[in-house]
Amino acid sequence: MTAWRSHKRTPASVGKGNLPEDAALVARQNGCLARPTGYFTKTPVHLVRGEGVWLYDEGNAYLDTYNNVASVALPPSRGAAMANQPPPSPAIPAICTTPSPGYSERLRRRCPPHRPHDVHLHGVRSERSCPADRAGTHRRHRGDRHRKRLHHGVTSRCRLPSLGPGVALGEHVRTVPAPDPARGCGGGRATAAGVQAAIDDLRRHGVRPAILIVDTVLSSDGVIPDPAGFLAPAVAAIRAAGGLFVADEVQPGFGRTGAGMWGFARHGIVPDMVSMGKPMGNGYPVAGLALRPEVVADFGTSGRYFNTFGGNAVAAATAGAVLDVIEDEGLIDNARTTGAYLAEGLRDLADRYRQIGDVRAAGLFIGADIVTDGRADARLTHRIVNDLRARRVLISATGRHANTLKIRPPLVFARDHAGVFLDRLEDVLKGLG
Amino acid sequence: MTAWRSHKRTPASVGKGNLPEDAALVARQNGCLARPTGYFTKTPVHLVRGEGVWLYDEGNAYLDTYNNVASVALPPSRGAAMANQPPPSPAIPAICTTPSPGYSERLRRRCPPHRPHDVHLHGVRSERSCPADRAGTHRRHRGDRHRKRLHHGVTSRCRLPSLGPGVALGEHVRTVPAPDPARGCGGGRATAAGVQAAIDDLRRHGVRPAILIVDTVLSSDGVIPDPAGFLAPAVAAIRAAGGLFVADEVQPGFGRTGAGMWGFARHGIVPDMVSMGKPMGNGYPVAGLALRPEVVADFGTSGRYFNTFGGNAVAAATAGAVLDVIEDEGLIDNARTTGAYLAEGLRDLADRYRQIGDVRAAGLFIGADIVTDGRADARLTHRIVNDLRARRVLISATGRHANTLKIRPPLVFARDHAGVFLDRLEDVLKGLG
Repeated sequence: MTAWRSHKRTPASVGKGNLPEDAALVARQNGCLARPTGYFTKTPVHLVRGEGVWLYDEGNAYLDTYNNVASVALPPSRGAAMANQPPPSPAIPAICTTPSPGYSERLRRRCPPHRPHDVHLHGVRSERSCPADRAGTHRRHRGDRHRKRLHHGVTSRCRLPSLGPGVALGEHVRTVPAPDPARGCGGGRATAAGVQAAIDDLRRHGVRPAILIVDTVLSSDGVIPDPAGFLAPAVAAIRAAGGLFVADEVQPGFGRTGAGMWGFARHGIVPDMVSMGKPMGNGYPVAGLALRPEVVADFGTSGRYFNTFGGNAVAAATAGAVLDVIEDEGLIDNARTTGAYLAEGLRDLADRYRQIGDVRAAGLFIGADIVTDGRADARLTHRIVNDLRARRVLISATGRHANTLKIRPPLVFARDHAGVFLDRLEDVLKGLG
Repeated sequence: MTAWRSHKRTPASVGKGNLPEDAALVARQNGCLARPTGYFTKTPVHLVRGEGVWLYDEGNAYLDTYNNVASVALPPSRGAAMANQPPPSPAIPAICTTPSPGYSERLRRRCPPHRPHDVHLHGVRSERSCPADRAGTHRRHRGDRHRKRLHHGVTSRCRLPSLGPGVALGEHVRTVPAPDPARGCGGGRATAAGVQAAIDDLRRHGVRPAILIVDTVLSSDGVIPDPAGFLAPAVAAIRAAGGLFVADEVQPGFGRTGAGMWGFARHGIVPDMVSMGKPMGNGYPVAGLALRPEVVADFGTSGRYFNTFGGNAVAAATAGAVLDVIEDEGLIDNARTTGAYLAEGLRDLADRYRQIGDVRAAGLFIGADIVTDGRADARLTHRIVNDLRARRVLISATGRHANTLKIRPPLVFARDHAGVFLDRLEDVLKGLG
């Protein structure tokens, strides 16, 4: 998602589409909410409905190979069940009880065994950071309350490239270089060394490290899932420094990696907190934070926590329906098998087309590097994203060099959808000459 | 909402209800999401559905006098319209266009004339602070980029009491005392003097003031709407210091004060940013930020902004339906007339029952102080809240002394609902002896 920052800065250019009404609509969007964000493709798509892996404008179907928000197909009866929930009530859960305990208990059972987690439900991702940060810093303060301001986080670089260096970091935040797949990843030792360097730098500045937070497939660094287990030494380093490990499962979570519900399972690590969101409500805004009980035990004793939409009935019912569908339809197995088939097809293309470099995959989360003469080529990647959009395949790019195709389709993506994607991608590659 | 912190800290006590299943359900909630928040009443309510101002458990109807989230009654056809929207798409609005421009344009037309605003849509309130903060600090940096870290905010005390002093403020944040109604409010001069003192203190610490943010009815300070216009000198003070004024309309906005769409209108001031949420989607999690175009002109040039749920189709359709209903059903007029009737009834009770002190009202937003021998009585307020709950009226308390009944019913609250509330409140007052 770092790929097209330069294009995003030029709203006038993104309106040059193949439909005359595009420019006017884009101008309207630029006039209000969309301007700072821009579009991934030169020509945006005017969607009117969606079904499974297909999204529709007025006349065409687009294959969705990027959606990890609406990631399952909820049966209509589920929609009705959601609509029957009471309206979010005054100050839920401050006045009334909700169906949320049931959902939280189900989710808790899906967190690592022998380490029961408390589960907090929030409106969206940004809200989760409050209890995560407060719980993290709170724990650190015990026995050392006078140094309150000195306890903050080590944040992995993996979450930050998508905002760019223009967005300032907190004074107590350090970033850690992601492993570079082009250099053989460096394995766990290099990552742990980066974490240790950040810990040392924090201490040199009088700051005691509190948390290490890592997206467990390093999505925005270009999807770096392997070798499985490489995160374990980094987690050991933060714990040795007295800090906590937070698994950011917003992108890899809820079955996408095909190796269980969470991305951290592939690394053989058990987090102190698990942060979740995006696909959790299949489009309904809901996010959650699971915590080891001892981490959150004192939370709320020194200051209140209140959240208008947190734990509301519609969110809990929707998120419960998503869990049902993932389990009833065997979508984790599907992510594993369809993901393997898709990755195999991409590696076959890489053998035949020099523009495709390294292909990295964990279930239905795949990064495919685009290269020219073996070197990262962001411009060519942008062209491929747009050529795919012209062939009605929706996709984007990511990675430190903005040259990784980010292939992250809905979990209901089947083998024939993978076939359509591979055919159209090959068609695009042939057209590059 | 500051009222029951001590009760919130004792989860075991809140389960002592009049139903045997309460304790078990509360224990389950405490085991997951609800623990840090607790309940406003000793016995929570197990709601199963809602309709207009009535909320239902399995056997009873409760009068809702507190709800500014589900604040209108959306007709069923609107629900269908929302369900027909496409699922939130990959990275909206980064790939596809949405119905959001239409909604944002409608909302913009309802912001102050002659000052067109850009409108950004977000998932929830916490997400809004990112662009508000970034736009505010960004603007301050122009011409003085090297002092980046020195530009931060002045935040009114009004938003903070609900979290309590245990939640740390940022180093560059100052709070300003709210006017004290018990001392005749002090009018605009005292508030402006508080803002000026905060500005001076920031400067003494080398910080250039960036924004003043105020809930325009000072909800959490006990609802302080009058004298209308008293905020104007404070706004002049922050502008004279080169800062921006942000109107927090999350509670007063969308017609509640009965004097137009926004609370700031009563003060004759035009904000640089308007922050909105809660009732905006009638329960669907959506929030927004309207900004003067020159404030946001450079936003997104030095760093990206991205929001998964921001501007999604369902949010925009829902929020549009809420605007329709507010206008089609004349709910702003209703807030004015029903609010005036309700306030008059409360003042009549105050004449007859010594426990009711000052009554302050702006449309359907009313604060009624509870006193013993003329002094704030938080314990008695808590008892009244619980006695009302026993009579199936849902309400809570707020204010610096935790002794203000916070009466903030849905906008569809009619004169006969006000009658029910006044009757049951009088019944409670009689029972106090």
